[in-house]
Amino acid sequence: MTITKQTGQVTAVADGTVVTPKGFQAAGVNAGLRYSKKDLGVIVCDVPASAAAVYTQSRFQAAPLKVTQESLAAEQKLQAVIVNSACANACTGAQGLKDAYEMRELCAKQFGLAPHYVAVASTGVIGECLPMEKIRAGIKQLVPGATAADAEAFQTAILTTDTVMKHACYETTVDGKTITVGGAAKGSGMIHPNMATMLAFITTDANISSPVLQEALRSITDVSFNQITVDGDTSTNDMVVVMASGLAGNGELTPDHPDWECFYEALRKTCEDLAKQIAKDGEGATKLIEVRVRGAKTDDEAKKVAKQIVGSNLVKTAVYGADANWGRIIGAIGYADADVNPDNVDVAIGPIVMLKGSEPQPFSEEEAAAYLQQETVVIEVDLHMGDGVGVAWGCDLTYDYVKINASYRT
Amino acid sequence: MTITKQTGQVTAVADGTVVTPKGFQAAGVNAGLRYSKKDLGVIVCDVPASAAAVYTQSRFQAAPLKVTQESLAAEQKLQAVIVNSACANACTGAQGLKDAYEMRELCAKQFGLAPHYVAVASTGVIGECLPMEKIRAGIKQLVPGATAADAEAFQTAILTTDTVMKHACYETTVDGKTITVGGAAKGSGMIHPNMATMLAFITTDANISSPVLQEALRSITDVSFNQITVDGDTSTNDMVVVMASGLAGNGELTPDHPDWECFYEALRKTCEDLAKQIAKDGEGATKLIEVRVRGAKTDDEAKKVAKQIVGSNLVKTAVYGADANWGRIIGAIGYADADVNPDNVDVAIGPIVMLKGSEPQPFSEEEAAAYLQQETVVIEVDLHMGDGVGVAWGCDLTYDYVKINASYRT
Repeated sequence: MTITKQTGQVTAVADGTVVTPKGFQAAGVNAGLRYSKKDLGVIVCDVPASAAAVYTQSRFQAAPLKVTQESLAAEQKLQAVIVNSACANACTGAQGLKDAYEMRELCAKQFGLAPHYVAVASTGVIGECLPMEKIRAGIKQLVPGATAADAEAFQTAILTTDTVMKHACYETTVDGKTITVGGAAKGSGMIHPNMATMLAFITTDANISSPVLQEALRSITDVSFNQITVDGDTSTNDMVVVMASGLAGNGELTPDHPDWECFYEALRKTCEDLAKQIAKDGEGATKLIEVRVRGAKTDDEAKKVAKQIVGSNLVKTAVYGADANWGRIIGAIGYADADVNPDNVDVAIGPIVMLKGSEPQPFSEEEAAAYLQQETVVIEVDLHMGDGVGVAWGCDLTYDYVKINASYRT
Repeated sequence: MTITKQTGQVTAVADGTVVTPKGFQAAGVNAGLRYSKKDLGVIVCDVPASAAAVYTQSRFQAAPLKVTQESLAAEQKLQAVIVNSACANACTGAQGLKDAYEMRELCAKQFGLAPHYVAVASTGVIGECLPMEKIRAGIKQLVPGATAADAEAFQTAILTTDTVMKHACYETTVDGKTITVGGAAKGSGMIHPNMATMLAFITTDANISSPVLQEALRSITDVSFNQITVDGDTSTNDMVVVMASGLAGNGELTPDHPDWECFYEALRKTCEDLAKQIAKDGEGATKLIEVRVRGAKTDDEAKKVAKQIVGSNLVKTAVYGADANWGRIIGAIGYADADVNPDNVDVAIGPIVMLKGSEPQPFSEEEAAAYLQQETVVIEVDLHMGDGVGVAWGCDLTYDYVKINASYRT
């Protein structure tokens, strides 16, 4: 285990995964939903874990989300989450719901669990039913383990058009005990507000109750997963699930606990790290765009402005073309749902100030173009209206985005 | 004058333009803002015309919009509108406002008008000041006339990345008199809600007061210009201006006039026609997408759903790729700001029903792909919630959109 970065009392664990926290195992196999890529994965916990989840805001919630919500409603505990890629099991009517229940049942049986301890997730094409013969056979093949290879098999099984696996892991200390938070995610297209085709699975060995975990997840989601956008589309299947095994042996965490901030920060960093990986690996993307807004009336308004900028097709194409077209940033600010004084806005692209007090500043086009060729492009905006701050992440809009999405199904 | 289409009591005038209604002349010249393309245009009326306008909802309204609003505030009458392309005169601070006033003054002087009878419009790059020497010299070259060539010169002068001129003209009868409505527009990128980099200039010889005209324009804009989207970005410069010369000799039009509907419909058709031309000529577009929603709780909700669908990058790329991916339509409906019953939605692409009562229907992929290769693609949605109907227009998202926008300034 390599320790790479220290931030306050939270430490990044470079090669950490969902099986790094105590009590978790994972697996991933090819069940034949795809030609050869792994397409079915599971995370299993040694004990019933405190659990929390957030779901897509779409009115068309896919069948697996309904089943997962039912599972969590029973005891707010989970001991396994079963996930398939290739087929979203969304808009599949009564048959889809039946299939999602069966997937839960089969997973419970495979690992000797009560069905309501199992969460179900699916991602892929909308409107097609799960090939249940393949799912049934695939679940029987799942043999979880706690090695890096097991975690990797799971991370691969959940991907769709993603080009890289996404995982993150952070450590902290609570009551003198090491607490670890690990996560795996998939993203790519249809990424926008409020959970877009995005799945994230987070494990921790912290001792924490489900309601407290749920509250933490909700507030962290608002500044991490809900602040990324790839194409402005929200999916029917997005879900973030957290399971806390409690095996680290700390005293129960609540917001009043003296080490609460450490835990919260470890969870937040895991989510932000995964969110940024998703944004960076957006379909066709070549660059990560990070927009930092300060001086808004409220944090909420700052977040909205940041997300509006990072979601603008015109900003995204300008970043792709390394064109310092700050007028498009102003354009996006102008229609964000936030109070703005049009006569007093600062805009900088990286270290280069473009607009100060809404007056254009002279800058070197060459320098700006060179900065915009970096892998990560930071746009900073000051609205001079108050103390609100917010960050959002996205990616550039490229030829490859069009290519991938003009023929996703075929 | 060729009459091509009869709809109720309103007739399309195929080669009609802004100079077809009685009392209007136009001109367009190259003032040197661009290399050789015409870039400065004017419409002049023989008399002070009743006038109405709607403007961008962006908080960063460009200088010319402020000047135009001031002109209209005086008497709600206009006798000329002066327009340049290439430079938006937006985010140009005090100098920008000074330049816009000077542009108004020079135009007024050139045609012997009171300055407050002149509206000013600009479109092009944000954040650069107008090259006033060129504008001054250009205005002196403007010699308006009422021929097709004069109208064409104006139509050309207002274009930016547009590939074709946009004009429309409709006739009707009020009090036994022929009333004509003509229009010219430019669009292309940054086209979305509430006036996007879109300028439209409409002329009519109807006798109508400014307040009544303003009310009609506002309600028509909501179902025409505000229902198109190219890329979801709203510009700083959008404006629609209508001038009514009153020279047709009809009795004054009000909503109580027996022929009110004829006039309203002629104005609505002119606006819708221009709006569709703008959507179809969106940057890089190869197809016009028309989304018709019915069965919403209200017309407003139907319009929102239609616009959400037509604005989805995933829907736009699927249409480009002729891929009948109705899951993306469902995706867009799912996050629109409208009441939806996820278990009872119908979706059809052209004549092909894809979803009925939220159940996927079998269809021929070949037939669907063939339909999607047409120049105009119609998507129909029934929400089964009420009587609300709404239509929106957009275009596909193509490689060329990315190409054009990755290097707009350079």
